[in-house]
Amino acid sequence: MTTYNFCAGPAMLPVEVMQQAQDELLNWHGRGCSIMEMSHRGKDFMQVAAQAEQDLRDLLRIPANYKVLFMHGGGRGQFSAVPLNLAKPGVSADYIVSGAWSKAAVEEAEKFTALKAQNIQIKQAGLRSLVPTSDWQLNDNASFVHFCPNETVDGMEFIDLPTTKAPLVADLSSTILSRSIDVSRYGVIYAGAQKNIGPSGLTLAIVREDLLPAKGSNIPSVLDYRLAADNDSMFNTPPTYAWYLAGLVFQWLKRQGGVEAMQQRNALKAQSLYGYIDQSDFYRNDVAPQFRSSMNVPFLLADESLNDLFVSEAEANGLLALKGHRMVGGMRASIYNAMPLEGVQTLVTFMKEFERVHG
Amino acid sequence: MTTYNFCAGPAMLPVEVMQQAQDELLNWHGRGCSIMEMSHRGKDFMQVAAQAEQDLRDLLRIPANYKVLFMHGGGRGQFSAVPLNLAKPGVSADYIVSGAWSKAAVEEAEKFTALKAQNIQIKQAGLRSLVPTSDWQLNDNASFVHFCPNETVDGMEFIDLPTTKAPLVADLSSTILSRSIDVSRYGVIYAGAQKNIGPSGLTLAIVREDLLPAKGSNIPSVLDYRLAADNDSMFNTPPTYAWYLAGLVFQWLKRQGGVEAMQQRNALKAQSLYGYIDQSDFYRNDVAPQFRSSMNVPFLLADESLNDLFVSEAEANGLLALKGHRMVGGMRASIYNAMPLEGVQTLVTFMKEFERVHG
Repeated sequence: MTTYNFCAGPAMLPVEVMQQAQDELLNWHGRGCSIMEMSHRGKDFMQVAAQAEQDLRDLLRIPANYKVLFMHGGGRGQFSAVPLNLAKPGVSADYIVSGAWSKAAVEEAEKFTALKAQNIQIKQAGLRSLVPTSDWQLNDNASFVHFCPNETVDGMEFIDLPTTKAPLVADLSSTILSRSIDVSRYGVIYAGAQKNIGPSGLTLAIVREDLLPAKGSNIPSVLDYRLAADNDSMFNTPPTYAWYLAGLVFQWLKRQGGVEAMQQRNALKAQSLYGYIDQSDFYRNDVAPQFRSSMNVPFLLADESLNDLFVSEAEANGLLALKGHRMVGGMRASIYNAMPLEGVQTLVTFMKEFERVHG
Repeated sequence: MTTYNFCAGPAMLPVEVMQQAQDELLNWHGRGCSIMEMSHRGKDFMQVAAQAEQDLRDLLRIPANYKVLFMHGGGRGQFSAVPLNLAKPGVSADYIVSGAWSKAAVEEAEKFTALKAQNIQIKQAGLRSLVPTSDWQLNDNASFVHFCPNETVDGMEFIDLPTTKAPLVADLSSTILSRSIDVSRYGVIYAGAQKNIGPSGLTLAIVREDLLPAKGSNIPSVLDYRLAADNDSMFNTPPTYAWYLAGLVFQWLKRQGGVEAMQQRNALKAQSLYGYIDQSDFYRNDVAPQFRSSMNVPFLLADESLNDLFVSEAEANGLLALKGHRMVGGMRASIYNAMPLEGVQTLVTFMKEFERVHG
């Protein structure tokens, strides 16, 4: 049975990538061992690492004055790294709270810098909505503005960037490579790998060079952007296997036509699922249409007593990990890059049949 | 051709483990996806995680008053984590320097605590030697004593533990599970995974409960022992695939007879290699016998102009990654748990033949 995995993260990886990883696992390129078992300082891995960086630069058209860092510690690590690297003494940072993850970023940053948090999630006519970017209260002199444009738990996304003189810092863990972005408008972009990039344990940071901290700052080394940049992300042993898998994903993305092609496909996937939900009285999504996430689609059953049955019947039909986040309940379909259109179509077909039987 | 990989790290993993990982990569236990693609909070991964912890507890006989933490950030992350979690305000820590890694730990710790470092590496009669544990100058009131009993670059190891009232903190990255230890004598044991445990990116910390920091301390979350302990190492998404592989290694170790059996096998491997080197004028090791590492065996050729030829001929014979560390030169054979005795025997046979031809 073909299965489709809707897990929010660690999420499914492209089937082609997993097959290549399996083929190469015991004997990478005839070397007699796994890429996982090679020195990060050897020629072979260095080449894998450099190719992955170049492919990412190509995919996102990253300008030359940005460093691409392959780090440990996940998004939570970056929640610390951002204020530790970027906060100026005595200067406040602006934090935009649009959901669970941007709120968690605030709680972490408060350990390391003064900040002003503003909650932009509101309810309008019964729908969850967001304050538009143009209405945010921003301080041009802030150390930086931090936001998370796609919230995986809340299923909410915004696209427009704010206008401010402070550097923009964005947690793109759940949207990186899913749509085209203009990197030059950001100061720092970071992303845990486990949604659109690779396995958990690897974290990407794309940092404008002028924002790197001074040498010799008292930041824990594994969170220090300067050390990572000056040592090609090899000051300490990087998570090499995750880096290799990320490289395979980047090559797969290029074969798919790049980020622009993914954006079109992702729009189709989201339209297909939201479109069906909206015409149904059996299912519902309570996010205002212009703020709906194209990556994480939470939906509720009108009869919540059917939740467990929905999840178990879906699983029996090869539709995995649809149970909603524990903070929200209901269902959630995460439809990152690796989820093919057929996966979403199969889900919609199942939802129709479930509605027909139980509606 | 059978290959043997002598890389110092990321190092070889047991062949059986890699084969099982390959078999399970696309479809773990019939679930229709990889363990890498599953939520860390789902039943399946939670079971994998708990089993790995239990197996490690069994293997090292870890007392119940110790927490086992599966963290991000490698040994370097722990270089920061140890002082951040354990240093008492206004109290100095003792750092023992026996080689490159314990020196690096000092440089990191100086960012976060007052400390007194003492270099115990000395030269005696032309051989590198170490000051015996009983002669260390220790402060019973220190926040902790940090040491690294096996230095991978220097190829030096000591076994005896010091006597002091301060908690012992040991970097066992390169020796954990290679010999039996009495965990109850330590305050904290930590280890990057990429030598004796699994792939790089995962880090183990075994922490005596009374040394956990207070709740709500201003430590970066990914380095906070308390947060990790209170959340079963899942405050942030852990490196799940590395955790799974570590679990397979622990099960393999149990099938091999546990740590005590590995210790015997490791002693045989080391004796076989050092024994041959010592009776040869063509090769030499300059560490005093009682301080020789049983995991990392550096050796020099009398005629250093043959170094490159040695490495390339070894590789042609399936003996991989023997080039010495860039700080030391010569050769280095890392013979962690996963290296079978036959691998060392094959290396010795090759060394004999190389000596016969070029000696």
